Amino acid sequence: MGTTPRPLVGVKPSNSLLLLAFLLTFVLVGSRGESNAMDNVATERMAEESHRQDSANLLIFIMLLTLTILTIWLFKHRRFRFLHETGLAMIYGLLVGVILRFGVHVPQSMSDLVLSCAVNASPATLLVTFDPEVFFNILLPPIIFHAGYSLKRRHFFRNIGSILAYAFMGTVISCFVIGLIMYGFVSFMKVVGQLAGDFYFTDCLFFGAIVSATDPVTVLAIFNELKVDVDLYALLFGESVLNDAVAIVLSSSIVAYQPAGDNSHSFEAMAMLKSFGIFLGVFSGSFALGVATGVMTALVTKFTKLRDFPLLETALFFLMSWSTFLLAEACGFTGVVAVLFCGITQAHYTYNNLSPESQDRTKQLFELLNFLAENFIFSYMGLTLFSFQSHVFNPMFIIGAFVAVFLGRAANIYPLSFLLNLGRKNKIRSNFQHVMMFAGLRGAMTFALSIRDTATYARQMMFSTTLLIVFFTVWICGGGTMPMLSFMSIPVGVDSDQENARRNTKHESAWPFRMWYNFDHNYLKPLLTHSGPPLTATLPACCGPLARCLTSPQAYENEGQLHDDDSDFILNDASVSSMFADVTVSTDASGSHTVNRKRSSTASTGGGPWDEGLDHELAQAENEVAIRGTRLVLPMDDPVEPPTTVTLPPPPSPPRSDPRRHRL
Amino acid sequence: MGTTPRPLVGVKPSNSLLLLAFLLTFVLVGSRGESNAMDNVATERMAEESHRQDSANLLIFIMLLTLTILTIWLFKHRRFRFLHETGLAMIYGLLVGVILRFGVHVPQSMSDLVLSCAVNASPATLLVTFDPEVFFNILLPPIIFHAGYSLKRRHFFRNIGSILAYAFMGTVISCFVIGLIMYGFVSFMKVVGQLAGDFYFTDCLFFGAIVSATDPVTVLAIFNELKVDVDLYALLFGESVLNDAVAIVLSSSIVAYQPAGDNSHSFEAMAMLKSFGIFLGVFSGSFALGVATGVMTALVTKFTKLRDFPLLETALFFLMSWSTFLLAEACGFTGVVAVLFCGITQAHYTYNNLSPESQDRTKQLFELLNFLAENFIFSYMGLTLFSFQSHVFNPMFIIGAFVAVFLGRAANIYPLSFLLNLGRKNKIRSNFQHVMMFAGLRGAMTFALSIRDTATYARQMMFSTTLLIVFFTVWICGGGTMPMLSFMSIPVGVDSDQENARRNTKHESAWPFRMWYNFDHNYLKPLLTHSGPPLTATLPACCGPLARCLTSPQAYENEGQLHDDDSDFILNDASVSSMFADVTVSTDASGSHTVNRKRSSTASTGGGPWDEGLDHELAQAENEVAIRGTRLVLPMDDPVEPPTTVTLPPPPSPPRSDPRRHRL
Repeated sequence: MGTTPRPLVGVKPSNSLLLLAFLLTFVLVGSRGESNAMDNVATERMAEESHRQDSANLLIFIMLLTLTILTIWLFKHRRFRFLHETGLAMIYGLLVGVILRFGVHVPQSMSDLVLSCAVNASPATLLVTFDPEVFFNILLPPIIFHAGYSLKRRHFFRNIGSILAYAFMGTVISCFVIGLIMYGFVSFMKVVGQLAGDFYFTDCLFFGAIVSATDPVTVLAIFNELKVDVDLYALLFGESVLNDAVAIVLSSSIVAYQPAGDNSHSFEAMAMLKSFGIFLGVFSGSFALGVATGVMTALVTKFTKLRDFPLLETALFFLMSWSTFLLAEACGFTGVVAVLFCGITQAHYTYNNLSPESQDRTKQLFELLNFLAENFIFSYMGLTLFSFQSHVFNPMFIIGAFVAVFLGRAANIYPLSFLLNLGRKNKIRSNFQHVMMFAGLRGAMTFALSIRDTATYARQMMFSTTLLIVFFTVWICGGGTMPMLSFMSIPVGVDSDQENARRNTKHESAWPFRMWYNFDHNYLKPLLTHSGPPLTATLPACCGPLARCLTSPQAYENEGQLHDDDSDFILNDASVSSMFADVTVSTDASGSHTVNRKRSSTASTGGGPWDEGLDHELAQAENEVAIRGTRLVLPMDDPVEPPTTVTLPPPPSPPRSDPRRHRL
Repeated sequence: MGTTPRPLVGVKPSNSLLLLAFLLTFVLVGSRGESNAMDNVATERMAEESHRQDSANLLIFIMLLTLTILTIWLFKHRRFRFLHETGLAMIYGLLVGVILRFGVHVPQSMSDLVLSCAVNASPATLLVTFDPEVFFNILLPPIIFHAGYSLKRRHFFRNIGSILAYAFMGTVISCFVIGLIMYGFVSFMKVVGQLAGDFYFTDCLFFGAIVSATDPVTVLAIFNELKVDVDLYALLFGESVLNDAVAIVLSSSIVAYQPAGDNSHSFEAMAMLKSFGIFLGVFSGSFALGVATGVMTALVTKFTKLRDFPLLETALFFLMSWSTFLLAEACGFTGVVAVLFCGITQAHYTYNNLSPESQDRTKQLFELLNFLAENFIFSYMGLTLFSFQSHVFNPMFIIGAFVAVFLGRAANIYPLSFLLNLGRKNKIRSNFQHVMMFAGLRGAMTFALSIRDTATYARQMMFSTTLLIVFFTVWICGGGTMPMLSFMSIPVGVDSDQENARRNTKHESAWPFRMWYNFDHNYLKPLLTHSGPPLTATLPACCGPLARCLTSPQAYENEGQLHDDDSDFILNDASVSSMFADVTVSTDASGSHTVNRKRSSTASTGGGPWDEGLDHELAQAENEVAIRGTRLVLPMDDPVEPPTTVTLPPPPSPPRSDPRRHRL
C-alpha cells in the first residue's frame, strides 16, 4: 500500500518520530548533534542549554496563543466580526516572526552550535522551527477528528450526494484544472527565463492537490453565529471536511506516480493507473479502519456498562479514537483520513451509548484540542513567513497560482452545481453557488501538506505561494464573508429546525440513501447502540437467539414508541418527517457554542419521548395521548418535570408539513 | 541556578527535546541514523518503516491502556478492591514485556537497522523504549498539577504545619537514613567482593532521595472511596504531594554536589553548602514561579470577563498552567515543582473566577490527563522490567534497599509524629502513624527519577532495585491497605463535613496561619477573585482609589453577607466555624468521582448564599430571613428554583457545634 510522503525536508533531519494526540513536540533545528560520548560534560551542558532554549521557544508560542485568546475575547466582547481568531493568530505570528527575524539578538552559544552544524541559515530564524511531521501526527488529527465528531449528521446526510460530488469530483477537477493552468504558467516562465529550477507536470498536479483542500474553520464559524441557511452550511462544511481527506490522499498518490524508465516525469498509463489504485486503496483502507475502530468503541461502550464511570469511559473513547490514527499509520494508510471517519462513526453510534457526562466531556475535550491545535497552526503559519529559510517568491508564479486557484474553484462549483441541480428537487441557487465559490478558504491542511516537503526548488516555490494564498483567503475572503452574505441576500438567522421542517419532505430522499437508512435503522443502530427497534423484530426468525443476545433491554422499551435519534436524516416513505433531535456539538470553535442536548434514550421511558421524532407509530404507544387540535400533551409519570407539550402536525398527508417542535 | 540532572542515559542519545503538556513522544532507540542525503530513497524508506514501527509500538501501549481501563471497570463493577488500577497497569505491562522479550519475532529489517547502529542490545527489547525525559516533560506535569489542583485545601491548610514537617524534614531524614544504611551495605558488599563497580556515598544519598518520594495515588484512591478520617487523609496526601517536590529538588542538589579537587566524592563543607543553596534556590524559585503564574491567571480571569466564553477560558487556563512548566524550565528551575504550586494557586484563587462550565471542564480535563499519564507510567514500569537493557539485580543490594526504605520511612514518621504531637491539640494517634508508615508507597516520581540517568553501574543497580521497590509497595502495601485499616481500627465511612464540624474548633489554628488567613481573606482573595470583603473596606483609606479600581462589583454585594468560600480552612476568633463549601474535585482517580459543586458567588445574589458558610453577619443581610427554630427558609427571587432550606446552627456560642449543612 502506498503511504503519504515522508519528509524530505531540506532544513534538517529529525531523529525523533512524533506520534501524539496532542501538541507540539519541539525540535530545534540542527542545534543538537548526535554524540556517543556518554559522560561528556560539554554535551551535557549543551543539552541543558538547548533544553532551556526549547522551553523558551515553546513559551513564545504559549504566550502567542494566550494573547490570541485574550484578543479573541475582546473581539467577541465588542462584537467585532471581520477578523476571525485564525486570522488574528496569523497576524500575531507574523509580528513575532518579524521580531525574531529582525529584532532579537542571538546568544553566541546558539550561533556557534548552528555554525558547527553547518546549516546554511541565519541563526535568528532558526529559533522556532518544527518538524513538519508534527503537523500531521499531532496537530491535524484532533482538528479533523473534531470536524467529524461535530458534523451535523442530519443536514450532512440529507445532502450527502451533493457533498460527495463536490468533495470527490470537485477536488479532482480543481486539482487538474489548477495543475494544467500552472503547467501553462510554468512553461511560459521557462520560456521567459523566470524559472531557476525544475518544475514538472507532477509538481503542478501536486500543487493543484494541496491547494484544493478548503478549510472549514473560518467561514463556518461565522455561518454558525449568523445561523445561515442549513443546506448551504451543510454543503460547505461537508465539502471542506471531506475534501481535506481527498486532497491528502490525492497528493500522496501523485507523489507515488513514478513511471518506469529514466524519464520520470512523462505520462505513462500504467503508472497513472497505479496511482489511481493507490488513491482508491489508501482512501478505502483509511475509511474502513476509521469506521472499524468507531464500531468497536460503540460495541465496547454498549456491552460493558462503562457508563457508570465517566472518567473511564472518556479515557477509553479518547484512546480508541487515537488508536485509529496509529493503526492507520502502522498499516500504511493515512491516519488523518481514518480519524475523520472514526469521528463520524463515533458521533453516529458511540455517542448514543455514552453517559451524559461523557458526552459533555468528550465534546469539550475535542473542542479544546481542536481550538488549541488550530490556533497553533495558524499562528505558526504567520511566523513561517519570516522564519522559513528557503522562501522562493516568484511574482509570476504567484499571480498564476491566484488565477489558477480562482478558476479551479470555479470549475469545481459551477459545473457541478449545474449537474447536481438537474437531479436535486431542492436546487442549489445561484447565490448559494457564489457564496460557495467565495468561501473556499485554504487553511491548516493546505499549509501542512505544503510544509511537509520543501526539499526541491519547486516545492519551496509552492510552499511560499501557498502561504500567500492562505493569508489572502483567510483575511480577505474570511473577512469579506459578512458583506458577501448580505450582498448575495442569503437569509441569516434561520432557525435550523424550522428551516428543516419546511424543507424536509420525503421526495428529497434518493433510494440508495433510503436503503442505507433502513439498514442503519433496523440493524446497525440496534446492534451498536441502545436505541432503535430490537433486533428480534428486525432480524429473520432464524437468528432469534443471536438477536436476543445483541439487543439491549432498552431497545424493547423503546420499541414501537420511539423513532431513534437520527431517524430524521433520511426519510422513508412510511414515516412522516421527524426532525427534531440534534445531537451534535455546534461547530463554532470560538467558545460560544450551544449544544442541543438530547436526553439519552435509556432515560426516556419515564418521561416519554424528548427530542426524538414522533412518527405515526406514536398512536400505538403505551403513553396515553390526548390530542387537542394540533397540540399533544403527554401525561407525565415524573411529577418533577414540567409537562411536555408537543405541537403535532396535521395528519400525515401533505408534502409540506408544519414545523413540529416539542417544547419542554 | 542549578538545574535538574540531564539524561546521561546509557541506552541512547536522543536528538529531540520534548516539551509537552501531554503524552508520549515515541523515540525508537538507535533505529534512525542522521543523514544529510536529501534525496536518498533508502533513507526515505527507512524513515517510513520506522514510522510504521513507532506507530505499532505506541499502539501496543494504547491497547494496554484500553485493556487496563476495561479491567478496572470490571473490578469496580464487581467491587474488587485489592488491586488498584495502577497495580493492574503494571501487571499488564509486565505481561507485554514478557511477550516482547521472549515471544516476538523481530523482523529482519529491524535487526539490521539495530545492528548497523551498533547498539549492543537484543533487538526484541528495543521495541518499546522512551526517552526518560518524556516522563519529566510530558507525563509528570499533568499528574503533579492535578494533585495540586485537586488538593482539599481546607484539610490541607488545617494540618499544614505537620504536612510541611513530614514533607521537608521527613524527606531529608529519610534520604539521609537510607543513604547511610545503603552506604553501610555497599561498603560491606565491597569487602565481600559483591560489587562490580563504583558506588560512592553521593550515589547512596541520591538513592535515598529518589526512594523517599511517596506516591499519593493508590492508597488515597482507597482512602477516598472508604471515606477514611479526613485528617489522616490530609496528612498522607499533603505529605506525598509535597515530598515529590522535595525529592526532585533534593536529588538534583545531590547531583550538583561537586567538591573541588580530584577526589570528587569526598565530603567538603563548601560543596555541601553550595548544594544546600541550590536546593533552597531551586525550590523557592520554582515555588515563586508557580505561584506567580497562578496569580496572573487569577488576575486575567478576574478582570477580563472571559467567563462568558468557557472554551476561551479553559484554553487560557490550560495554557497558563502549561507555561508555568516551560517558564520554570527555561529559567533553570524545576518545572514539575512549579506546576504543583501553580495548581494549588489556581485552585485557591483562579477557580473561583471561572464560569461553572469552565470549572467542570478544567477539572475533567486534568482528571483525564492525570488518569492517562498515571496509567501509562505504571504500565511502562511493568514493561521496563523486561525491556530495559542493563538491569543489575544484586540480591544483597536489594535486601539492603528494602531494609533501608523501611527504616527510612520509620525514621521519618515516628520521631516526627512524636515531636508534632507535643505541639498538636489534635494528636496524631499511634494507629494513624502505623498507617502512614505502611502507606508510603513508591510510584511514578521514584520511577521517573531513577530512569532519568542509567549511565553508570551504580545508577543501573539503583534503577533495577527501585523498580522492585515500586512493585512491592504498590502490590503488597497497596493491596494490603484495606486489611491494614481494619486491623488498625481506623474509622471509615466518615462524613467529611461532620467530622470537620466536630474537630474544627478554633483552638486548633496556630497564630502564623491565622495571620496568613487574615491576610489572604482581607487582601489576596478580594484582589484576585470576586469573593471576600471589598478592598475598600480592608485597605487603609489612603489607598481608596486603587482599592475601588481593584474590587469587583460582586464584592460589594457579598459584603457583610457571605463568608468567602475557603474561609473555613482556618478559623479566626471572630467567626464561628463555617465549613460547608468543598470546591475541590474528589481525588479518586478511578472514575467514580463526586464533585461537590459550589455555585459561583457572583450568581448568588438572587437566590441567596448556596454552599457558602453562614456567619453571624447574616442577620444584617439584605435577604429577609425567617428563622423557624433551627431552620432558615430564604425567600426566593427566582420562582423556578426550588425553595432553599438551610439548617441553622444553634446561636454561635458552643465550641462543638452541630453539622450545619444546607439542603437544596
